[in-house]
Amino acid sequence: MTDIKTATDNNDSERRVTIVDTTLRDGMSSVSHQFTAQNVADIAAGLDKGGVRTIEVAHGIGLGASSLQYGFAAETDPDYVRAAVEAVTEADIAVLYVPGIATIANLQGAMDAGAKTVRVAVHCTEADCAEQPVKWAKDQGMNVMCFLMMSHKLDPEPLAEQAALLDSYGADVVYVVDSAGAMVPRMAGERVAAVRSAISADIGFHAHNNLGVGIANALTAAEQGARYIDGSLRGLGASAGNAQTEVLAAAFERAGWDTGVDLFPLIDTAENIVAPLMKEPQIVDETALVLGYAGVYSTFFHPTKRAAQKYGVSTRDILMELGRRGVIGGQEDMIIDVATELAGRTYETPGAKR
Amino acid sequence: MTDIKTATDNNDSERRVTIVDTTLRDGMSSVSHQFTAQNVADIAAGLDKGGVRTIEVAHGIGLGASSLQYGFAAETDPDYVRAAVEAVTEADIAVLYVPGIATIANLQGAMDAGAKTVRVAVHCTEADCAEQPVKWAKDQGMNVMCFLMMSHKLDPEPLAEQAALLDSYGADVVYVVDSAGAMVPRMAGERVAAVRSAISADIGFHAHNNLGVGIANALTAAEQGARYIDGSLRGLGASAGNAQTEVLAAAFERAGWDTGVDLFPLIDTAENIVAPLMKEPQIVDETALVLGYAGVYSTFFHPTKRAAQKYGVSTRDILMELGRRGVIGGQEDMIIDVATELAGRTYETPGAKR
Repeated sequence: MTDIKTATDNNDSERRVTIVDTTLRDGMSSVSHQFTAQNVADIAAGLDKGGVRTIEVAHGIGLGASSLQYGFAAETDPDYVRAAVEAVTEADIAVLYVPGIATIANLQGAMDAGAKTVRVAVHCTEADCAEQPVKWAKDQGMNVMCFLMMSHKLDPEPLAEQAALLDSYGADVVYVVDSAGAMVPRMAGERVAAVRSAISADIGFHAHNNLGVGIANALTAAEQGARYIDGSLRGLGASAGNAQTEVLAAAFERAGWDTGVDLFPLIDTAENIVAPLMKEPQIVDETALVLGYAGVYSTFFHPTKRAAQKYGVSTRDILMELGRRGVIGGQEDMIIDVATELAGRTYETPGAKR
Repeated sequence: MTDIKTATDNNDSERRVTIVDTTLRDGMSSVSHQFTAQNVADIAAGLDKGGVRTIEVAHGIGLGASSLQYGFAAETDPDYVRAAVEAVTEADIAVLYVPGIATIANLQGAMDAGAKTVRVAVHCTEADCAEQPVKWAKDQGMNVMCFLMMSHKLDPEPLAEQAALLDSYGADVVYVVDSAGAMVPRMAGERVAAVRSAISADIGFHAHNNLGVGIANALTAAEQGARYIDGSLRGLGASAGNAQTEVLAAAFERAGWDTGVDLFPLIDTAENIVAPLMKEPQIVDETALVLGYAGVYSTFFHPTKRAAQKYGVSTRDILMELGRRGVIGGQEDMIIDVATELAGRTYETPGAKR
C-alpha cells in the first residue's frame, strides 16, 4: 500500500481515498442480521459494479457472533462470504474479527470461503488483544485492517500509542473508529493527525452519523491523512447508521477527492436493492442522537430501546447513565442493570418529559 | 447586534451562535404546506421552551406563495403568524419574503399579525431586488435578515459583493444560503469568510443536507464567523431537508459552541410533535442526492419527482440536465420543459439503468 506522508503534503495526485463498504456487515445490525445469501449477492454485485474494491460481509458483530446474545443470523458466516465472493468480479471480501467473540477457527472458515481481508476490531485502549489474530492473518497472507473502536474515548496521543502497537503487529491499515458517532470533525481530524505521525501503516476512518457529521468526519479524516473511508449504502448500520456510501462518493468528489468509484451504479444499488430491504430509514431520532451525545457504543441502540420499553424507563435516561459509566462494547448486560436501577426513579435530565 | 470581527478572533467568549428554526417555514415544503394553526402553535411552543429565539413560519415558499403554482397552504400567512405569536413567550416570529412572490401588503399583514423579523430572500446574483423590502421593513422597525440563495453558484468574492449590497440596504444579518445542498464544508467556509471581510452586518448560514454535510457546513460557517445558524426539527425541509435543529444543538455543544438552546426540550418536540406529523423521513435518497450533486434548487424536489413519473423519464436525468442549464428558483416551468424533451430519449449518465 502507498505510504502517505503528512496531511500537509496533500496535493492533487495524493487526493485519493479508497471507499470500503460495510452495508453487509455493519448494516446487518439494522436488519437483525437477516440478509439472505441472495441479498448479499445482489448488494455485493452492485457495489462491485460501482467500483468498490473492499466489501465487508457477515454478522453485524463479526465472525462467530451469531448467537442468542447477539442475535442469530440468517446464514452462516462462510455462506455469506461465499455468496459475496461469487457475486463480484473485482472486489475483495472482508470479514470482521472481534477478539473475544471470533476465534481463529472462524477466521480460517471465512478465509476458506474466500475472504481476503480481515478487520480486527478492539476497544481503543486494548490494542494488545489484536496481536494474535493480526499476526495469524498476516502469516496466511491476508490483508489486515485494525479498528480502534470508541476512539472518542481516548485523547489523540494515547490513541496514537495504541495505533503504533497495531502497526507493530503488521496491520496494513489502522482505523480510527467512531463507534458511538460521538465525534465532531475537529475530534476526528485531531485523532487521525496524531495517528498519522505515529505509524507507517495506512489510516482508515469509520464514521457513525449520530451527531449528523459522519460524512464530514470522513472528509476531515481524509484531509488529515486517512486513505480508507468506510461507508454503507443508504447509511445502513447500527443506531444512526454509517456514513452513506453513495453520499460519500458525491461529497468526496465535490471536495476534490478521487474515490475511484462510480456514483450512479452505487445510487442504483442503494435505491433499488438496499432501500426496499430496510426495516426503517437511518435517521437521527432521539435514541440515536442521545447515544452519540452520551458517547455510547452504537450496537447498544436496539437493546436500549427494548430495555426502555420493558422496564418503563426512557431511552434517554438509560443512555445518559451508560455514558456516565463509560461502558464499552461487550458490556451490553449493563443496559439491563441501568434500566432496572432507573425503574422507579427518573434521572434529572433537563426537560425530560417521560 | 454584536459586531463579530474575523474568524481568527474567535476565542471562548465569542464561541456563541444563535439558532434560528425554520421547521414551520422550510419544513412546510415537506408537508405540502398543510400544517394547521394548532400544529404551528404546538411546535412553536416546543421551540420556545427549548430556547430558540427566532422561529420562521408560514408557507414554504414564503409570504404570498399560497397559490395553484406553489400549492395552497392550510391556513393564511397571518393566521400562521398569529398562531405562533400566541404560543410563545420569548421567541420572535419571522416570515420569509421572496421579491416577485411576496408583496409589501403581505409583509404588512404579517407584521400586523405579530411578526417581528423578516427574511428577504433573493438569488445570489440579484441582491438589488432586496433593496425595497429591506428598506421598508427597517423603516417599520423590523429585524431584517437577507438570504443569498443558491450561494454555491457564485465564487466567494462576487458573493461578498452581493452581500455588501444587502449590508448597504440595512440588513441586520446576511445569510449564505445553500439552497441546493450543493456545498461541502470548504465551500461554505470560503464563502462565509469572504462575506465576513466585506460587510459589517452579522452573517448567517442556511444548510440543506443533500450531500450529507448540512451540520458540518454550519459548523464550518460558524468557525469562519457566521453567528446565525438555521435548522429545522428532524431536518424537516425541502428535498434532503435542512440541518436538523436538535442535532445542531448537540453537535455545536460538542464542538465547543454556546447555542443558548436547551437540547432535551428540542428533542422532545422533534420526537413527540414533529415526527408524528411527517409524511416521510428526511433522508438522502436518489432524488435528494442527485439534486445536491447537480446543484439544483431544493424546492424542485417534488415537482421533479412528479414530472419524472408523468413523462416516464428518470429524476436523475431531469436533475442533471437542470443542473447543466443552471436553472434557479422561480424557473420551475423548466422541469416540464426538460422532462418532455427527455421523454423518448435517455441521457448518457454513467450506469443509468432506467
